[in-house]
Amino acid sequence: MTNSPHDAAPAVDDVFPDFDEVPSASVARYALVLGDDALIAAQRLGELISSAPELEEDVALANIGLDELGQARALLQYAGRADGRSEDDLAYLRDEAEFRSAHLVEQPNGDFAGVIAKLLLFSLYQRELYAALTGSTDNYLAAVAAKAVKEVRYHVEHAVTWTIRLGDGTDESHRRMQGALDAVWPYLDELFEVADFADLAADGTAVDASALRTAFDTALDVVLDEATLTRPDVPAIRARGRYGEHSQHLGYLLAEMQVLARKHPGAAW
Amino acid sequence: MTNSPHDAAPAVDDVFPDFDEVPSASVARYALVLGDDALIAAQRLGELISSAPELEEDVALANIGLDELGQARALLQYAGRADGRSEDDLAYLRDEAEFRSAHLVEQPNGDFAGVIAKLLLFSLYQRELYAALTGSTDNYLAAVAAKAVKEVRYHVEHAVTWTIRLGDGTDESHRRMQGALDAVWPYLDELFEVADFADLAADGTAVDASALRTAFDTALDVVLDEATLTRPDVPAIRARGRYGEHSQHLGYLLAEMQVLARKHPGAAW
Repeated sequence: MTNSPHDAAPAVDDVFPDFDEVPSASVARYALVLGDDALIAAQRLGELISSAPELEEDVALANIGLDELGQARALLQYAGRADGRSEDDLAYLRDEAEFRSAHLVEQPNGDFAGVIAKLLLFSLYQRELYAALTGSTDNYLAAVAAKAVKEVRYHVEHAVTWTIRLGDGTDESHRRMQGALDAVWPYLDELFEVADFADLAADGTAVDASALRTAFDTALDVVLDEATLTRPDVPAIRARGRYGEHSQHLGYLLAEMQVLARKHPGAAW
Repeated sequence: MTNSPHDAAPAVDDVFPDFDEVPSASVARYALVLGDDALIAAQRLGELISSAPELEEDVALANIGLDELGQARALLQYAGRADGRSEDDLAYLRDEAEFRSAHLVEQPNGDFAGVIAKLLLFSLYQRELYAALTGSTDNYLAAVAAKAVKEVRYHVEHAVTWTIRLGDGTDESHRRMQGALDAVWPYLDELFEVADFADLAADGTAVDASALRTAFDTALDVVLDEATLTRPDVPAIRARGRYGEHSQHLGYLLAEMQVLARKHPGAAW
């Protein structure tokens, strides 16, 4: 972790200091999808701080949450340029139906195995996503992805270590890890849907998420095998987060996250 | 922030890799006082994550919280060596009456001005404390302090910037900042009490906290002046956190912080 809040400069400047390009409306919508996933994931990880089972794990999850928040900021800042909104406008002043995050990241944390199961699936997905996005024809998205993929590799490593430790641990930890994986599994397919970005995928701006699934499955199977876990056999839920249709959980999360900013618009009293 | 949870190695190793000294019982008690202050401060900052009024502030407060958590871990690990307890034993398995933190850090956050008022007083105190402790005859405490004082300088800078921005801002922000300062003021004096460490202060192990007050006051007055704030004229509360007597707020904080670890002792299912 940094020792200085001053290092926490806006991620957009870290990534691309002199970049003043304005994204098209559809690129902005795409950036919002990726950014909202990261933002909501960061919020859920933030809830855990101070209540992980070990101080060391507390620190690790906090750092992962900060990485996600950094990705969210970089993407929301870019998206906001399309219509003159700030990252804070987008994070704090949108209603639930305007968020484009997937259902997976808005699910409650559950127990520690639940946190790890969600992190495992999400980080393995993000690793494939960002690795592919480094080749985007959109220079900004490519630069964000190049930074993010390095961060996410550590998230994967962390999630994999715990998945194996719990899965291949005691009977009780195995049972919980398998249960957590089964519980989050229905929300996996949504991550690999292209939503309405087929045009952007075709011209090389966006990643065709469906094309990531094979690499994801291969990596996941290696982990599950070592963790003595079984690939869940439960049906996917038809989730339409990309179209603003969310589970009941997002509303509560947003209420918590937005309360201060909405009470004092512009953070000004 | 780091991009890697792996950088979040135990703080004790960062500070002093090959140190295997065991503190005396009284040095361990002193380390607990400092460590508990940092730990409880970190928990309160952790509560704020995802609900700061700006994403950038969210990141800054999270990083300050992580710094405090790192200091807490370094100090608790050292304290625990005296009787074979781990940092996690000390953080998660002690009862309220065994915590040695000051009342200031356990107070609820209140509004954003409240967060900043608490951070201002606490970081100004910690800056003087750690600066003095770098000269400790205890090599471990001196090394922890040398690292911590650099971190805390940034916390001070952050708190000062906001104190001036709010104090010398609008009528409403001024009113709130002054009110927040008045509200936290009664808890200030406790930080400068020597408690029962006079012997350790005399032999140069511990810092004589009462000797820090003049430098603290001088620094604070400069800030209050620039922020057009008035030094509060409210009496101190007789707080005995150093003796395990806490306000009602610590119990709730610990319940939240310890729930997971106590349900699964040793983080093992």
